Amino acid sequence: MHILVFGAAGMVGRKLVDRLVTDGRLGKDAITKMTLHDVVAAKKPKKVGFPVEVSAGDFAVPGVAEKLLANRPDVIFHLAAIVSGEAELDFDKGYRINLDGTRMLFDAIRLTGSSYKPRVVFTSSIAVFGAPFPEAIGDEFFTTPLLSYGTQKAIGELLLADYSRRGFMEGVGIRLPTICIRPGLPNKAASGFFSGILREPLSGKEAILPVSEDVRHWHASPRSAVGFLIHAATMDTAAIGPRRNLTMPGLSATVGEQIAALKRVAGEKVAARIRREPDAFIAGIVAGWPRNFDARRARELGFTTAEKTFDDIIRIHIDEELGGKFVA
Amino acid sequence: MHILVFGAAGMVGRKLVDRLVTDGRLGKDAITKMTLHDVVAAKKPKKVGFPVEVSAGDFAVPGVAEKLLANRPDVIFHLAAIVSGEAELDFDKGYRINLDGTRMLFDAIRLTGSSYKPRVVFTSSIAVFGAPFPEAIGDEFFTTPLLSYGTQKAIGELLLADYSRRGFMEGVGIRLPTICIRPGLPNKAASGFFSGILREPLSGKEAILPVSEDVRHWHASPRSAVGFLIHAATMDTAAIGPRRNLTMPGLSATVGEQIAALKRVAGEKVAARIRREPDAFIAGIVAGWPRNFDARRARELGFTTAEKTFDDIIRIHIDEELGGKFVA
Repeated sequence: MHILVFGAAGMVGRKLVDRLVTDGRLGKDAITKMTLHDVVAAKKPKKVGFPVEVSAGDFAVPGVAEKLLANRPDVIFHLAAIVSGEAELDFDKGYRINLDGTRMLFDAIRLTGSSYKPRVVFTSSIAVFGAPFPEAIGDEFFTTPLLSYGTQKAIGELLLADYSRRGFMEGVGIRLPTICIRPGLPNKAASGFFSGILREPLSGKEAILPVSEDVRHWHASPRSAVGFLIHAATMDTAAIGPRRNLTMPGLSATVGEQIAALKRVAGEKVAARIRREPDAFIAGIVAGWPRNFDARRARELGFTTAEKTFDDIIRIHIDEELGGKFVA
Repeated sequence: MHILVFGAAGMVGRKLVDRLVTDGRLGKDAITKMTLHDVVAAKKPKKVGFPVEVSAGDFAVPGVAEKLLANRPDVIFHLAAIVSGEAELDFDKGYRINLDGTRMLFDAIRLTGSSYKPRVVFTSSIAVFGAPFPEAIGDEFFTTPLLSYGTQKAIGELLLADYSRRGFMEGVGIRLPTICIRPGLPNKAASGFFSGILREPLSGKEAILPVSEDVRHWHASPRSAVGFLIHAATMDTAAIGPRRNLTMPGLSATVGEQIAALKRVAGEKVAARIRREPDAFIAGIVAGWPRNFDARRARELGFTTAEKTFDDIIRIHIDEELGGKFVA
């Protein structure tokens, strides 16, 4: 089985590749080849039992997708995207990569040939939804994004469903929750603090909390995100029907609940490294974000999270990123 | 006020132009110029108190929209589309006109200049919805189209909302019900019989009914459709917020109720010209179509139908198309 990953150098892409390399297989099939594409070269994994090709460059350029499809990969993970903040600041770039790039990829698949029908897993986002929301967003709630990024993702979902209905590919779109705990350095994303208030204190560093503790949000661990991608790539799509874009399961938690979990798992002293510094600008942005979902359909289709509680989310981070230890 | 109409030669476009010419104004403003564009030249209206320019050609070609926008029309009606059957048969043409053409128009508006922000009225369709449906589809139901046409319209809606949110234009998207009674010759559209079983008998001709009388569908007269367009062009958009695509009000009626109305308005003899000829293929297509909506938001925003009952729909046709007389 040949797997092609777009966006392989990103955080979720790297975690996915690690898992695929460790497993050596995807579902029932042994992996025979992997192609990793991103705008910057992805790190080539070590100790791999199959050939891995690394390709770097802009994928929203005519001919790039065609070339990567020449060997007819069986499964394509499409994780490539301009993130929300940048897509909002650079209108043309966001539409060019997130809309045109996605469409060029789907068209390249369509035009490859009559017998080619790969599984395509597309990472969408809960940014396809826009406030005001019901208390828990159900599977049939409409998509009225409030960012160009969410608009582009919603368009990608529509294309994925139509290209699948037409028989050009076997697409599954998954709307990932906010990934928590996101590893790496603090960044300027408005959502950064949801991970920062856990990740930084666990490493002995101070973190800033810009919103009040009653802010509720929708989370999943990186391990869950990778699990969703693998399941989307291997599930029986006969059950999914024409509605191919699914809100993934997650945990709805307030910031207060996140902090309580941190205290339980790592102690009061660690949680004391969180400094309250209210920021009206960030609070305003976050107020428009989804708080909770009823992801019934995805659960019925076999998507499961790796965590049952927020304590688990913290433990997964300590396990995967900190070698089992944190700074008490 | 300068008005530009894309799709001016189509059925709804012609009715809209007739109404604008008769009124001589749009809302509070006198019309000073009208530009009519379509792939074939629209008929130039007679006895007009303002200059009318007719332009013919493919609008999904670079430069065409820019040229038509050179005089900065205040209101743009975008009714141009490849219809559902053709968009399904010709994948590339449907995407090129319905998606690329719409995006090229919106981008041409965006790039015209900082102070330009026209009102843009976009005709979407109830084809953005896909079965299974609730008994009445509410304003927050999700869009999962089952045709490429509906996919392209749903994408147009997303673009319209994002380009409006960004401040490039003042867009309003309206999802028209099936237009009934559609004037003109019978066509091969699967929905054709909804109009045919009324229009043909009223002209003394036989009509074929391919489905059972309990089939329910969602209708509005051409007069209502024009009323929706005018209201969308003149309403205060402050009230609409970021959710700029609205399901228009209509009448939900079964075929049996349509026929009963025909009997009341035109008599048993006219209704006897309907011949039952069940067609499993058409029945299958129609089974996937919306039956009923709760168009609350549009009503609250001032959209109203010209008809209260199906009898009215028939009377409007007799009045507008048959000079007040039918073949008894």
